[in-house]
Amino acid sequence: MPKYTVTFHPSERRISVEASENLLQAAMEAGIHINASCGGSATCGKCKVKIVQGAAASPKHPKLPQWEYDQGYRLACLTPVEGDLGVEIPLESQVDRSVLALKGDRSAHKYLLSPQDIYQLVKGWDVDPTVFKRYVEMDPPTLKDNASDLTRLTNALDRQHGIQGVSADFRVIMKLSRLLREASWKVTATLVLTRKGYKLINLEPGDNTKRNYSIVFDIGTTSVYGQILDLNGCVVVACPDGQCDGSTLFAVAEASDYNAQISYGEDVITRIVYSQKPGGLKKLQEVVVSTMNKIIRELLSMSGIDRSLISHMVIAGNTTMTQLLLGLDPKYVREDPYVPTANFIPPVRAIHLGIDLAEHVHIYTFPMVASYVGGDIVSGILGSGIFQRETLTLYMDIGTNGEIVLGNKEWLASVSCSAGPAFEGAGIKFGMRATRGAIEEVGINHRTYEPMILTIGRSRPIGICGSGLIDAVAEFLAAGLIDQNGKFRIDLATDRIRKGPDGYEYVLARKEETTIHEDIVLTEIDIENLIRTKAAIYAGCRVLLESVGLRFEDLEQVIIAGGFGRHLDLEKAIFIGLLPELDIDRFVFVGNGSLLGARLLSFSKDLLKETERIALMMTNLELSNHPTFMNEFVAAMFLPHTDASAFPLVTKTLGRMRRDTPTEREVAGQL
Amino acid sequence: MPKYTVTFHPSERRISVEASENLLQAAMEAGIHINASCGGSATCGKCKVKIVQGAAASPKHPKLPQWEYDQGYRLACLTPVEGDLGVEIPLESQVDRSVLALKGDRSAHKYLLSPQDIYQLVKGWDVDPTVFKRYVEMDPPTLKDNASDLTRLTNALDRQHGIQGVSADFRVIMKLSRLLREASWKVTATLVLTRKGYKLINLEPGDNTKRNYSIVFDIGTTSVYGQILDLNGCVVVACPDGQCDGSTLFAVAEASDYNAQISYGEDVITRIVYSQKPGGLKKLQEVVVSTMNKIIRELLSMSGIDRSLISHMVIAGNTTMTQLLLGLDPKYVREDPYVPTANFIPPVRAIHLGIDLAEHVHIYTFPMVASYVGGDIVSGILGSGIFQRETLTLYMDIGTNGEIVLGNKEWLASVSCSAGPAFEGAGIKFGMRATRGAIEEVGINHRTYEPMILTIGRSRPIGICGSGLIDAVAEFLAAGLIDQNGKFRIDLATDRIRKGPDGYEYVLARKEETTIHEDIVLTEIDIENLIRTKAAIYAGCRVLLESVGLRFEDLEQVIIAGGFGRHLDLEKAIFIGLLPELDIDRFVFVGNGSLLGARLLSFSKDLLKETERIALMMTNLELSNHPTFMNEFVAAMFLPHTDASAFPLVTKTLGRMRRDTPTEREVAGQL
Repeated sequence: MPKYTVTFHPSERRISVEASENLLQAAMEAGIHINASCGGSATCGKCKVKIVQGAAASPKHPKLPQWEYDQGYRLACLTPVEGDLGVEIPLESQVDRSVLALKGDRSAHKYLLSPQDIYQLVKGWDVDPTVFKRYVEMDPPTLKDNASDLTRLTNALDRQHGIQGVSADFRVIMKLSRLLREASWKVTATLVLTRKGYKLINLEPGDNTKRNYSIVFDIGTTSVYGQILDLNGCVVVACPDGQCDGSTLFAVAEASDYNAQISYGEDVITRIVYSQKPGGLKKLQEVVVSTMNKIIRELLSMSGIDRSLISHMVIAGNTTMTQLLLGLDPKYVREDPYVPTANFIPPVRAIHLGIDLAEHVHIYTFPMVASYVGGDIVSGILGSGIFQRETLTLYMDIGTNGEIVLGNKEWLASVSCSAGPAFEGAGIKFGMRATRGAIEEVGINHRTYEPMILTIGRSRPIGICGSGLIDAVAEFLAAGLIDQNGKFRIDLATDRIRKGPDGYEYVLARKEETTIHEDIVLTEIDIENLIRTKAAIYAGCRVLLESVGLRFEDLEQVIIAGGFGRHLDLEKAIFIGLLPELDIDRFVFVGNGSLLGARLLSFSKDLLKETERIALMMTNLELSNHPTFMNEFVAAMFLPHTDASAFPLVTKTLGRMRRDTPTEREVAGQL
Repeated sequence: MPKYTVTFHPSERRISVEASENLLQAAMEAGIHINASCGGSATCGKCKVKIVQGAAASPKHPKLPQWEYDQGYRLACLTPVEGDLGVEIPLESQVDRSVLALKGDRSAHKYLLSPQDIYQLVKGWDVDPTVFKRYVEMDPPTLKDNASDLTRLTNALDRQHGIQGVSADFRVIMKLSRLLREASWKVTATLVLTRKGYKLINLEPGDNTKRNYSIVFDIGTTSVYGQILDLNGCVVVACPDGQCDGSTLFAVAEASDYNAQISYGEDVITRIVYSQKPGGLKKLQEVVVSTMNKIIRELLSMSGIDRSLISHMVIAGNTTMTQLLLGLDPKYVREDPYVPTANFIPPVRAIHLGIDLAEHVHIYTFPMVASYVGGDIVSGILGSGIFQRETLTLYMDIGTNGEIVLGNKEWLASVSCSAGPAFEGAGIKFGMRATRGAIEEVGINHRTYEPMILTIGRSRPIGICGSGLIDAVAEFLAAGLIDQNGKFRIDLATDRIRKGPDGYEYVLARKEETTIHEDIVLTEIDIENLIRTKAAIYAGCRVLLESVGLRFEDLEQVIIAGGFGRHLDLEKAIFIGLLPELDIDRFVFVGNGSLLGARLLSFSKDLLKETERIALMMTNLELSNHPTFMNEFVAAMFLPHTDASAFPLVTKTLGRMRRDTPTEREVAGQL
């Protein structure tokens, strides 16, 4: 895709921009503030800029008077970049965001891997799926050759494809004789390689080998993500709202939804408590299956693939989610000494769980390590390739729980800390998942305290997602809207901060600019939830590192997984103390790591053994009753941390901001 | 058991008799005729004998006047043999049966193997069942040792029993956590060894290893036989009506019934035709399962074993019966080129077929060879040990179909001939299975044409079973009641032969002597059915032998299997041409050979591979459209056969009888 240079005046900042981006996005990326509170949906009319060089096909707009249009003013959100441009930013919009100046090549955005790069995290695998189809033609039986139908078929599989020792599922045998004859002895066999050999699980008339799909699921406590994969390895990405990240490579379609269990408790503990009520376990099993069935419907509808063509299913979930989905009583997961029912789950027929797929579809469930380190983490370690490399890596999966793994190809250690669902939008007043209408990027003008927001799909805002939340809190802190405890400064000259029903809050978008016809606010309680979440994760990392005598500085790589979408801002995550202050080059974002591993496993049977090895190799450290975890947690309940020495650059930046008055900053036009 | 000598006067024949037998049985065995038409139930009062030497505790009887009792007359059926006896037979009862004088040690009854001998037919196996139980104790989990419940259990199985690589059935996992805790970590695991390794299929609290049972079934077209086995190898035989043969060794109980499918057709062809009607296949599947469930209820009730303790099930049946039971459309079994759906059937959960057993019970189905050579034959070859020996053996399974196998440990060839259900009592006017009240032995007085009959259980006759039918027709022929075409001689001085609604018939028991208050007769149509049946079997043997260039004389052993009960009389079977005229030493009767093999397989996992080898090794010869079979069949539609040279001794005996008039014979008192 061609790139163009946009030069912003008067800051004279230049940025290289891909064609198809618009000026509002470009400014957000460059750290240039332009007021914008409708998320880029061309509603508020605030993002006025003046094109002083080059030409842009930007339409007129009711909020832009003709005389301004004639002078070259345009709405940034309506202005595509289709050539080099010079853009003048209005005075009230000029203040840049804070910059941490982390070491490393920030401009290359190395930590934001491309899908292709993520695909390369794991080496040495080919598209050679566990469940595959083979076309066979047979001669009809004669009196001289009247072997049984099954023998005829298995002989043909041997002769034509070298596949030996096939055992047949009884349901295939049941339809075998009629189908072979109706198909004139030309059929497509669906086979699965288990550790016990090949099994014939389905038979279709004619050649259907080109149509073989699997569905993979990440069953999170808050969110459920599903992808449909073309097992022939064709790449046709169709992801909603342009939110594709690395984990969507090779996916035909992706869909997600809240786990409907959320009505029965926000975290795993409350779910387990509910499961102990009469009928509770059954209810929770049913509702997560209903979520999955809804996602399957969406995936099939988006991709136009027939339900009968789905041959396989892979599921990664934390231990409690897995047990609830399988109907396994999770009672002892929660009770000291925290014992899951099983680490390895045998293949289960999807229909037996109530999942709406063909009867031959079996579910591969990622093995679990401990009560709070589940198959989603094993899947993430598989998908991110840690199990193959020497590199000492910290893997952080940030969802409702924060699961953290430390190690490399030789050893793996894990902890789990209850983080809460803030990053997935739950427990946040206007929180939502990273779907269309979610505020995903936030800037705050340090002088006027006015917001600049971008939504997913550039539509009117509906709520705020995880990356938007981190952006907002970091910007609040940088702009001095909140103190380091996360409390609003109520003496500032802005009507964006006000007292609401739940205490103080900041208005991100006014009701006339939103889809929901309500003000979208971020409350002090929301901020407190975020701080608790980030503190738990940071403290978990510290305890895990200490348990093996290491420090953050020893880490060669930090892999961040989680449902943030593409737009988690690394520097802002460090700014609030969610991530440690390390060189930028050490960070890698992989998006939904669980889906990444689930997809790999669907594509490559060679990785089955590696998956088992990962689960067996991982040692879990129980944080409950851990002597230092609670201290670490309390120490991290501050922005960025009570130990300022752990965040020297953030501390320095905050100090510099406190010294500067808004007016001084504005006058200096400093970066 | 002690043996006593009984000497019959005036023939001076001596016989060695086991204590507990009564004089009527002893006379039947010795070939001494005593009139008796109530089957030994002390009803007719005809079996009067006079004790002239020794003492017998024989009670008085209304049909025996005091003066006769005082002179030493007794009813033979009421007289136990409890010491050496001299017995005088009344004049009208003295005629002996014909004797073929076959070469070989007839007195040793070698061809009637004891259960222990039959058990020795197969060498080198131990009681080491495929499905077994192991008791394990575990330490409860702690924070330092909080492996998953399943890992704890499989580790314990490894450490305490050396069982590794166990995979768990998902249904065990579902109840695992709660059960382990309720059982205080002391449980009994039920494991099955498949060709893919060990699988954990059930878990019980406490030590239940001593209570492990299987149920084996022979699903015949006409009859279904079931046995319950103690998989710990304890021998507690409880078989109804004293009808235990070799196949009941090691069985805790045995029960049988007609296959309820019989209402939908007497043979496999009519069943297949019915299965093609709408709902027909489902109906046939359901009714055979209802028969099995009835037998299971009886077995459990007879043995007092709880249903939950049945761990395994083995089924042997012909191909059509197997496919119908499994719900596999048998359409192509019947259509040229006669192709079964599959030879090897994977394990199927019993409850999935509607069988009333615990959900963990899987069915092992004996593999099939061809459309008309099924798992029952493979099971019979296994159970009779042919697959282990050098001896050239002919194996004949005589049921509704006659299946015949020729070979030894190196090679096996088979044919199947549609025989009809005459030997199982179906298609015979008063036919019945070999259960209580069935006439199982018949003698005919060559002068008076009066019958001597013995029933199973020595109760009043209800009908006639296979061995009784063969006895009766052989005796009819020997006594000159029928000609060699099986037609009654209607010029004889007896009111036992009469014209009935179905043509000529012989009255075996008059209504006042029967349970059913009807005359029990054998009709010319019954005899014709028997001739057709025996002709098909004999012709099948001839064609099979000819196909490999052999003759009957080349056979080193002939093994006869079938539901005849213990009392099939070898000489009478040869007399009518059902079996070839060979030296007596070459014959072995094994009873129900299918059950024999099914039982062995339940007891010994080592025999699984042998079973597969047998099925793969056997070559089937299709008799339909065979160029010489029909000629052979027609040639055998005669008693014993149109080729007299094939039955020289029978022909000689018949010739001698024709020369003798009854009066002459009586005068001579010849043997």
